[in-house]
Amino acid sequence: MNIQSPITSSLPLGERPGSRKVYVAGERFPDIRVPFREVAVHPSAGEPPVTFYDPSGPYTDPTATIDLAKGLPRPREAWVLARGDVETIPARAVKPEDNGGARGKFLAPAFTGDRPILRAKAGRTVTQMEYARRGEITPEMEFVAIRENLRREASAAFIRDGESFGAEIPDFVTPEFVRDEVARGRAIIPANINHGELEPMAIGRNFLVKVNANIGNSAVLSSVEDEVEKMVWATRWGADTIMDLSTGRNIHNIRDWILRNCPTPLGTVPLYQALEKVGGVAEDLTWEVFADTLIEQAEQGVDYFTIHAGVRLPYIPLTARRVTGIVSRGGSIMAKWCLAHHRESFLYEHFEDICEIMRAYDVSFSLGDGLRPGSIADANDAAQFAELETLGELTKIAWRHNVQVMIEGPGHVPLHKIKANMEKQLAACHEAPFYTLGPLTTDVAPGYDHITSAIGAAMIGWFGTAMLCYVTPKEHLGLPDREDVKQGVIAYKIAAHAADLGKGHPSARAWDDALSRARFEFRWEDQFNLGLDPETAREYHDETLPKEAHKTSHFCSMCGPKFCSMKISQDIRDAAQAQNDVASGLQEMADKFRETGGEIYVEAKA
Amino acid sequence: MNIQSPITSSLPLGERPGSRKVYVAGERFPDIRVPFREVAVHPSAGEPPVTFYDPSGPYTDPTATIDLAKGLPRPREAWVLARGDVETIPARAVKPEDNGGARGKFLAPAFTGDRPILRAKAGRTVTQMEYARRGEITPEMEFVAIRENLRREASAAFIRDGESFGAEIPDFVTPEFVRDEVARGRAIIPANINHGELEPMAIGRNFLVKVNANIGNSAVLSSVEDEVEKMVWATRWGADTIMDLSTGRNIHNIRDWILRNCPTPLGTVPLYQALEKVGGVAEDLTWEVFADTLIEQAEQGVDYFTIHAGVRLPYIPLTARRVTGIVSRGGSIMAKWCLAHHRESFLYEHFEDICEIMRAYDVSFSLGDGLRPGSIADANDAAQFAELETLGELTKIAWRHNVQVMIEGPGHVPLHKIKANMEKQLAACHEAPFYTLGPLTTDVAPGYDHITSAIGAAMIGWFGTAMLCYVTPKEHLGLPDREDVKQGVIAYKIAAHAADLGKGHPSARAWDDALSRARFEFRWEDQFNLGLDPETAREYHDETLPKEAHKTSHFCSMCGPKFCSMKISQDIRDAAQAQNDVASGLQEMADKFRETGGEIYVEAKA
Repeated sequence: MNIQSPITSSLPLGERPGSRKVYVAGERFPDIRVPFREVAVHPSAGEPPVTFYDPSGPYTDPTATIDLAKGLPRPREAWVLARGDVETIPARAVKPEDNGGARGKFLAPAFTGDRPILRAKAGRTVTQMEYARRGEITPEMEFVAIRENLRREASAAFIRDGESFGAEIPDFVTPEFVRDEVARGRAIIPANINHGELEPMAIGRNFLVKVNANIGNSAVLSSVEDEVEKMVWATRWGADTIMDLSTGRNIHNIRDWILRNCPTPLGTVPLYQALEKVGGVAEDLTWEVFADTLIEQAEQGVDYFTIHAGVRLPYIPLTARRVTGIVSRGGSIMAKWCLAHHRESFLYEHFEDICEIMRAYDVSFSLGDGLRPGSIADANDAAQFAELETLGELTKIAWRHNVQVMIEGPGHVPLHKIKANMEKQLAACHEAPFYTLGPLTTDVAPGYDHITSAIGAAMIGWFGTAMLCYVTPKEHLGLPDREDVKQGVIAYKIAAHAADLGKGHPSARAWDDALSRARFEFRWEDQFNLGLDPETAREYHDETLPKEAHKTSHFCSMCGPKFCSMKISQDIRDAAQAQNDVASGLQEMADKFRETGGEIYVEAKA
Repeated sequence: MNIQSPITSSLPLGERPGSRKVYVAGERFPDIRVPFREVAVHPSAGEPPVTFYDPSGPYTDPTATIDLAKGLPRPREAWVLARGDVETIPARAVKPEDNGGARGKFLAPAFTGDRPILRAKAGRTVTQMEYARRGEITPEMEFVAIRENLRREASAAFIRDGESFGAEIPDFVTPEFVRDEVARGRAIIPANINHGELEPMAIGRNFLVKVNANIGNSAVLSSVEDEVEKMVWATRWGADTIMDLSTGRNIHNIRDWILRNCPTPLGTVPLYQALEKVGGVAEDLTWEVFADTLIEQAEQGVDYFTIHAGVRLPYIPLTARRVTGIVSRGGSIMAKWCLAHHRESFLYEHFEDICEIMRAYDVSFSLGDGLRPGSIADANDAAQFAELETLGELTKIAWRHNVQVMIEGPGHVPLHKIKANMEKQLAACHEAPFYTLGPLTTDVAPGYDHITSAIGAAMIGWFGTAMLCYVTPKEHLGLPDREDVKQGVIAYKIAAHAADLGKGHPSARAWDDALSRARFEFRWEDQFNLGLDPETAREYHDETLPKEAHKTSHFCSMCGPKFCSMKISQDIRDAAQAQNDVASGLQEMADKFRETGGEIYVEAKA
């Protein structure tokens, strides 16, 4: 099995249409190179290029050489080693059960390479929170600061118009601000010391709202190529982090391929792999198997772990009368374990041990909401909020170990119950970043849950959620393919940006305004290129007006040339601008307009 | 040109999958037949069928004979005649300019039939508002009352859980409630006396949130078949009203074909046709041409007219500094006319004359927002709100004539400015129903504006908007085709239902709960059939688990058999239910679970 060629053949590579990859160097750390995507507009506009956040990594850099078999470069490795608090350790030997016992032709090839395996020296904590609380600014923090500003420090005045519900978004992000947010636990920088390929990013209420895309095989569908391709594809469309939710065989090897080629943080649910190791029998799970899995994945470089430690034994009966019971996979596995043993969850009881492991690699917690509602009927119920209180308690424990924490949230929530989720999370979890799945605002549209949930995601993002976990059109029905991943990411980029706009984020409005000016001035190519998906916009336009000439037309097929309001509106404005005083000069304007107006319509050439 | 066969060949006919068309007769008016769509669930559920609102007309009735050349039956004609306040008049002769001067093979065939043309007897007002204020309950009002209840009066207790922001939604809708809402102007029943084919519906904050779909040709694209098919297609997916926004030639004839086959209210913007009649030169528009167009369309049976009478001369300079000027077609045409003549709008000056025409046919006003914002930058500005105040003033004038009114709203609005739109509309327009386009919550996603706007539509619907005008993926790019129409309607059905849920509408939750129970119990066919789009849900499921056997599987391809949280959750529940006391019997439950649990996983048969 030649893993390299089949993947690269279908990998989306190169710059996006109309985009250029640019880098900004650090000041404090001159060797860091923060990537942006830049879109230049037509010279007639007389406007500077628009700068976009760019999580797509080297895949969109035309100067980069992509060789999946070698993996991406690892610039972060030097930053980590320079801190002097880590050591190289012998890699944990891969066991057959790490890949679900797959053998022979069923075993996915291992990723081979001579990467050092890093771990904190004995007694040291190597987390960004540790450094932040010590007052140290790391290269990761400066990287994040530059990245979050989108070069707005170099641009003209920006508009701060929004309602942020108590967020404290600064005009400009400084490395010191990043440090302070991480120190307070209000933001995390998921950055495992073994993920040298990572381009650091922050998740926090006072930064841009982020989007996570889930990928991963299942027992039914499985392929290394598919998952790596989905990862590249998702980041190309703007996914800020990736979760690998694989549950079938080969998940160790697949994860290695993903991580070595992944420029974004990668999250996992270690419980899934642990369950595979005990043959899928939840009752047979043990702390030892689980802890070994954490170490296995931490050595690989996973940046955050979903840990369902809030599913406590006494909460399980609270789900008995629910319409949809427990819908979190991890939550249901732990509930089953607790019931079978009639014991408190080993994740809860060993929580400090988990912290000990995670602080040695800087793996961040994503405290899982195992009791999240799976239907409108179950939203905001006693089970959900009991778990949330426990997650707040666990947050404090993790912070005592200087381990970074974010909190997972629902799920399915009707419009009128969304805000309460955010408010309760902020209060119960001490402002640790919230990371929500949707929420879906209705249960009735299987096949369209990227839309039912983008509605809820935009709202909860506006209220303060730091990262939105996407939902694809296949939710509830099947595993997303490449096209579903794209649809999910785009729906969530919309939700995240709508939330940033609503919060009044100082970088948000510039994008809308640049696109709307292009729209009003019939700069069609600019409108396409500035959009979230230039190819689709161009394709839709060309379905009815395909000729190149129409790209400069002052109308489109919606209204045709005579009824184009923007064209008429421009005529009105041109006439108005011929007057010095718009308000008082109406009579002269009217006369002149009639005299000179003549033919304002462009004839359709079709 | 044989109009009938090419249309009928591609018309979507027959019941939707798993659905059955049912009718409920009136009590006060026993001959009215209110249509519903009913979905029966698997007998194992032990649940009654779910009743759905059904605007699709006879096209989904397997007993109906559809002949587009003859048009639909006209049951409403008898109701209108029975009131004794109308007379049959000679039809206004069709003029060449009504069809934009199209001739020969370019002229679409006329719809032929011997329908009486009705008008109010001299001095009479034949609007639903007139009857309502007189205290008369009409068949239309009883039809609406039955329709809005979705047979919930026959069902068990329902859940009233929501935040309605001051709406007054009753537990059950009575004909008297409908009458009162219409009398107060809080709801309208758009029902031209010449639209006998209509199945009446209401638009108002205290009823279910409705969805409008725009269709119509343009100078670039034009076809009778396409437009009739889009109308049928849109109502099949749930559009409650249709607007025909045609602007090219043949619009008189196309409109006749649509109306004679349209079971929902049809709205138009008469200004578009008037402009065609004066050769597309806005300055040449006159009150006489416009008034003649109103009469032409009123005789055809158009149920509501968008009238941009709020675009007043002094407001036009307020748009001069906007990023996107005036984006309403009607608004820009009127602005151009006002500027060219330096005169107040003839629509504003002749508003009482317009009322005189409309009350003779019961055409409802949809007071157009000609100055709505076309970008985030222009939202909630002085021009928009100045016009809104004028629309409130015009509402009072229309009500003095007992003409029904709804108010159109934006447009492009960021999240934090949506609520202000609803609040200002309620205050300025005296609770007349609000009818908004979206709003789009960001400008940056051409190709995905059904999603950018479904977010805003759900929110503004929740806040109190009575009808949501859909936006399709082609918005800003081209004219929607059949698939775009479907995507737009579905995105807006999601938004409308999410809004109903948020408001705590007593009919809303039953749908979600029925679907979620089906999901939890692995009744896959029920989950598909209860969804907004059964075909797509089934197709997505079958992409990875196509075999019939998997339709009864207790898992799907997302997680595979071992990781299905719902399956595990059901096991937990089954175990719990084996105990009398869930809370206290955990130890026994745990023992029993381990003893008897055995194999809970269903093996994948694939």
